[in-house]
Amino acid sequence: MDQPRSSAPPGEGGAGPVDTAAPGNPDKAPRTERGRRTLRKLLDAAAIEFGERGFHDASISGITRRAGTALGSFYTYFDSKEEIFQALVRYMSEQLRDHVTPLVQAAPDEIVAERVGLESFLRFVREHKEIYRIIDEAEFVDYASYRRHYETTVERMRQRLENGAARGEIRADAGEVHAWAIAGMNVFLGMRYGLWDESADIADVARIANDMLANGLRKKD
Amino acid sequence: MDQPRSSAPPGEGGAGPVDTAAPGNPDKAPRTERGRRTLRKLLDAAAIEFGERGFHDASISGITRRAGTALGSFYTYFDSKEEIFQALVRYMSEQLRDHVTPLVQAAPDEIVAERVGLESFLRFVREHKEIYRIIDEAEFVDYASYRRHYETTVERMRQRLENGAARGEIRADAGEVHAWAIAGMNVFLGMRYGLWDESADIADVARIANDMLANGLRKKD
Repeated sequence: MDQPRSSAPPGEGGAGPVDTAAPGNPDKAPRTERGRRTLRKLLDAAAIEFGERGFHDASISGITRRAGTALGSFYTYFDSKEEIFQALVRYMSEQLRDHVTPLVQAAPDEIVAERVGLESFLRFVREHKEIYRIIDEAEFVDYASYRRHYETTVERMRQRLENGAARGEIRADAGEVHAWAIAGMNVFLGMRYGLWDESADIADVARIANDMLANGLRKKD
Repeated sequence: MDQPRSSAPPGEGGAGPVDTAAPGNPDKAPRTERGRRTLRKLLDAAAIEFGERGFHDASISGITRRAGTALGSFYTYFDSKEEIFQALVRYMSEQLRDHVTPLVQAAPDEIVAERVGLESFLRFVREHKEIYRIIDEAEFVDYASYRRHYETTVERMRQRLENGAARGEIRADAGEVHAWAIAGMNVFLGMRYGLWDESADIADVARIANDMLANGLRKKD
């Protein structure tokens, strides 16, 4: 269903590639470009609606109003508020991936890739502040989506570390524990310096964190 | 209101020291040992009630039933479900601190302290699985408590790093960004290996993560 990652555009703050938008039910996948555009409009509107109001207070009519679509369009793609929320978690997860991946893949080595990955994640958070509220609320609304978002994201990082280790760019034992540790680091730095602190120098935060990740806390002789 | 951290008992999985239990309103602080015991019973029961049912479905009568106290006792200390939830976030945050701090303080240097801190956190999560759901739900129920929990916890880590740097045990520039990065690392490892995976060897996870933290991802020559 998804295009290969390398074909995703590296655009920042945009609506993401069409292919990341999918309805709750695969049978309802749009068959025309116009349909895909409507679906994407609904998901972008849902991000604002859920991000501003939270799952409980968000409404389907609020989503279609923001999207500028008829209520019927909603039901062409989704059966319920739960279903679009679930699709939205996957959509945001994939938008994030499509934003970060091409930048990371262009990095000269795995250490730089992790710095670029963190910096581009911090920029994504600044542009899409609703991502924390939406992903975090999935813990309560749809635990399977919540867990899948992190497992998918971390598996991608683990694979990246494994490839970097195979190329001799980082320590040979880098694996799953390292990937979860780095993911947590990034998510917390995103909350502190992307979400809460508008004025933080994102490149600087990424540089400091990456230097610790690369070289460790231990004092060098 | 709190005792100094170093006087907290290092007990694991217990109800925590009496002093971490405080009602929502300081005017309602219990004056007798019996009152403090009741308050603690209510907070421990609230942890189970909110942990199992979530904020929305949890009820005051569910809390008093689990605590084995009369409904009147609840209102001696709290005015509402919101108020005991807020007190519970602080209580859990302080229980965690009181569990981890003495172990960390006994470590021979700051690198070991971070390993011991992570390992004892992972053990705390295994014994108090409800902590994730409660702290995470605070993001939606009481954002100020949510943010305060992390800011307080990370400030304690930052201070620890600063002291370790002053003693020459770690790199001299260790500061706020490093502290947030380490906190995120610990929270994600706790979710993955404390909460989701009962069978993971906690000491091993802490050792692997600490080795990356100490020495970095970079390949050593």
